[in-house]
Amino acid sequence: MSKPAIRFRLDLGPGEAVGPGKIALLEQIAESGSLSQAARDLKMSYKRAWQLLESLNSSFKEPLAVTATGGRRGGGATLTELGRAVIRSYRSFDRAVQAQAARHFRPLAPYVRRSAAPGRRAPVVRMSSR
Amino acid sequence: MSKPAIRFRLDLGPGEAVGPGKIALLEQIAESGSLSQAARDLKMSYKRAWQLLESLNSSFKEPLAVTATGGRRGGGATLTELGRAVIRSYRSFDRAVQAQAARHFRPLAPYVRRSAAPGRRAPVVRMSSR
Repeated sequence: MSKPAIRFRLDLGPGEAVGPGKIALLEQIAESGSLSQAARDLKMSYKRAWQLLESLNSSFKEPLAVTATGGRRGGGATLTELGRAVIRSYRSFDRAVQAQAARHFRPLAPYVRRSAAPGRRAPVVRMSSR
Repeated sequence: MSKPAIRFRLDLGPGEAVGPGKIALLEQIAESGSLSQAARDLKMSYKRAWQLLESLNSSFKEPLAVTATGGRRGGGATLTELGRAVIRSYRSFDRAVQAQAARHFRPLAPYVRRSAAPGRRAPVVRMSSR
């Protein structure tokens, strides 16, 4: 199963949170070395990716990723050490929480309806540890 | 601190999830014995509350709350045993996860910026156990 049983976000302050979307953006920046490529990989607009990164960077005292000034949409993007630490921390918590959720919510699984709608995957309580 | 550090939802299937909004609705139904009163308490429209409850009930093999037929918007609403079990399970997991998040994300707290913007509460990593 590809999707987690639990989706969570960490609230840092009013209107400021780190959730799966921002973490995925940081991971794609790490992979591609480019904000515009990361945006394409995540099928979001460059503007949206830029806003998410600005939001992330402004929530912390140091940036999580820096973009090189260059041509229009040109320069690369690189994670900082803090950016890598935030990803690691989020992902390790994610793994722990998924495993716990699998155990915790198992007693409810028999009560979850399996949809008969054609073309839909049967909805079950998703309890994999990804 | 009133808000949790972590907001999570449990994915039951495609497009079907149980998160803080639906749990709050069930809790308000339990408290008020009325779907319309629960909607008012949560500052949502009756239609929205009805849709959330329909979504919840259709995700499970048995309803989580039943509404009495009565006058237009008239009848009461009552949780079923399964509804109470879902609330208990969600809330106990919530408490456990908040406590773990407090410990897990503590090393990042010094890096979170405290906003100087007037009128805003200082954003800190929220780590209370609610």
